[in-house]
Amino acid sequence: MTTATAPDADAPIRVLGLSGSLRKGSFNTALLRAAGELAPEGMRIEPYDLAAIPMYNDDIRQAGYPEPVAAMRTAMRDADAILIASPEYNRSVPALLKNAIDWASRQPDQPFDGKPLAIMGASRGALGAAFANHHLRQIFVVLNAVTLGGPEVMVGGSPDKFDDARRLVHEPTRTFLAAHLERLAALVRSNRGG
Amino acid sequence: MTTATAPDADAPIRVLGLSGSLRKGSFNTALLRAAGELAPEGMRIEPYDLAAIPMYNDDIRQAGYPEPVAAMRTAMRDADAILIASPEYNRSVPALLKNAIDWASRQPDQPFDGKPLAIMGASRGALGAAFANHHLRQIFVVLNAVTLGGPEVMVGGSPDKFDDARRLVHEPTRTFLAAHLERLAALVRSNRGG
Amino acid sequence: MTTATAPDADAPIRVLGLSGSLRKGSFNTALLRAAGELAPEGMRIEPYDLAAIPMYNDDIRQAGYPEPVAAMRTAMRDADAILIASPEYNRSVPALLKNAIDWASRQPDQPFDGKPLAIMGASRGALGAAFANHHLRQIFVVLNAVTLGGPEVMVGGSPDKFDDARRLVHEPTRTFLAAHLERLAALVRSNRGG
Amino acid sequence: MTTATAPDADAPIRVLGLSGSLRKGSFNTALLRAAGELAPEGMRIEPYDLAAIPMYNDDIRQAGYPEPVAAMRTAMRDADAILIASPEYNRSVPALLKNAIDWASRQPDQPFDGKPLAIMGASRGALGAAFANHHLRQIFVVLNAVTLGGPEVMVGGSPDKFDDARRLVHEPTRTFLAAHLERLAALVRSNRGG
Repeated sequence: MTTATAPDADAPIRVLGLSGSLRKGSFNTALLRAAGELAPEGMRIEPYDLAAIPMYNDDIRQAGYPEPVAAMRTAMRDADAILIASPEYNRSVPALLKNAIDWASRQPDQPFDGKPLAIMGASRGALGAAFANHHLRQIFVVLNAVTLGGPEVMVGGSPDKFDDARRLVHEPTRTFLAAHLERLAALVRSNRGG
Repeated sequence: MTTATAPDADAPIRVLGLSGSLRKGSFNTALLRAAGELAPEGMRIEPYDLAAIPMYNDDIRQAGYPEPVAAMRTAMRDADAILIASPEYNRSVPALLKNAIDWASRQPDQPFDGKPLAIMGASRGALGAAFANHHLRQIFVVLNAVTLGGPEVMVGGSPDKFDDARRLVHEPTRTFLAAHLERLAALVRSNRGG
Repeated sequence: MTTATAPDADAPIRVLGLSGSLRKGSFNTALLRAAGELAPEGMRIEPYDLAAIPMYNDDIRQAGYPEPVAAMRTAMRDADAILIASPEYNRSVPALLKNAIDWASRQPDQPFDGKPLAIMGASRGALGAAFANHHLRQIFVVLNAVTLGGPEVMVGGSPDKFDDARRLVHEPTRTFLAAHLERLAALVRSNRGG
Repeated sequence: MTTATAPDADAPIRVLGLSGSLRKGSFNTALLRAAGELAPEGMRIEPYDLAAIPMYNDDIRQAGYPEPVAAMRTAMRDADAILIASPEYNRSVPALLKNAIDWASRQPDQPFDGKPLAIMGASRGALGAAFANHHLRQIFVVLNAVTLGGPEVMVGGSPDKFDDARRLVHEPTRTFLAAHLERLAALVRSNRGG
């Protein structure tokens, strides 16, 4: 449950942000941008683009991680925390995100082990990517991430909460999201002190 | 719950087989081969290779399905049933398979709607890909596939049930699998008569 | 997949209705009542009260089913289909309903085996008992019920859709529910013909 | 994420143990007893009997918690951590345990909020109550328990791992369980320091 190094509890918090969608107009990528604006002092959220990650094939892994995969694993390991914003496709996690997690999940040096992690989701409909959120939680149990608990961030009705430039303009959601990020910061600091 | 055409209930049954793994030595691809040998009279299982399917991106879909995706959708639609053999990666569905499902899931002409479908899984450990099996079932609810019920096919301890050439040699598993395929055939025939 | 008897496909359809809540003002019990009004011609929905079912204890089962449990199992077996309306408590199935299912689930003469079954849920919040719906679906896989597929009936925002007398007054939901019951009737008839 | 009081990090750890089965010969109750023997120095596991808890009914809750429920809630709140050993019934959580959780879950003073919690399961078959384990994890997300991550404790093949007096005699499982309890102790101590 502890990281290899024990930095000062008040050191800046570097968060790697992962979006589950490649679509330019994605509400989830927009939610991740909003998180970047709403992050508490001392926390910086850096989006990481998953477009270059090839489809997982264990024969390829055995031959050596492709360069974009190796770079992603290093970036994950170097981050203080992971923040995911993911749509739900067909009641589960989009392949783009699952693929990144599967490449990352292999030992040794599995980057999620003991890593603070938070999950958000946005959808056009009412559910707010609820099933994707919970499938991700199941996935991160076996990877032993330290996943932030409830209340879950499930942003339903996104077209009414983002403007046409995909800025999060719904104030209650902004407040809720800011509180979630405060809790993530507290989780990182508590984990450091462990 | 009915297919567009109403073939004779005793017509041959063409099953599209999907493996969730690209690995050459995959136990799940081997399980699909074993199903091909054990299929009841009148049923033929044709494996469909997912290697050429690109990662889902909704901007690309809007511009038109890439050729390998369009071909896969047609093959799924033309089949009488779908048979999946999938490993479990990190308590969920491998990206390879989820990606294929997500491309297929878009309307119009969603190929799983009303389609008989069966799910199998194999693993080295004890669980037999149990979580992948159930996540797939959740996914196919919203797609309205007619998914074969229990008992689930969860082949644990695969290294003891397949030989070095990846032939399924464990007789109780062969018998169980044959019965599962008989039930799939009955489901297809019942669906035709609908 | 077939019932012991093979009644005429057009015979009346008797549906056993189960509510997951004992609360007098329950939105889910109200949803079941609404289903009773909206059932297609030839289908009758009979609510079954679970209040008298004791908590499951396998030592008691071994000694013999308590009378209310035996009566419930018979009623389930005699029905042509099961219709569930269940709230979600803490992201899963209420104990009341899970307990009834667990008593019913034991062999021999497990009443859900091959039985057509449909699932609905209502909630005050946005999710419409989505997680309870899907946990129920997982449960009924292993029991081999023939569970109606999607679209799932997830009635969110119930206080706006029911009046003070707990009558379902939201017309789009009434239409959606009526279509769901039509699909259940078709499933029962298809199953009879099997 | 912090408890109301901030005890010394090295103070004794009092763990409330919950079994999901009432059966006298329950493997899960036996697993909880084994945990009691294997707990690290400074940790005491006290089983709590759920037999007296009535079935949840929100009308009754509104009128006031029945005495056994109020006592259980107090015991949960007073404990430093919760340890669950639960069988899987029909791919989900037994009603006995779900019922206790649902009574406990109501605000104010929800006892799981910020509470360290660990989950174990045992089964006759291969799965080791895997689905019950994960449904419990989903439940405890919304209740904001601090649930111990993987590797999950899934004890399959229980008849070979316990003797006739239901003592856990399988040494690898004893070692694995002891390590799990060490991790729970570390989680409690880390949470205290928060």
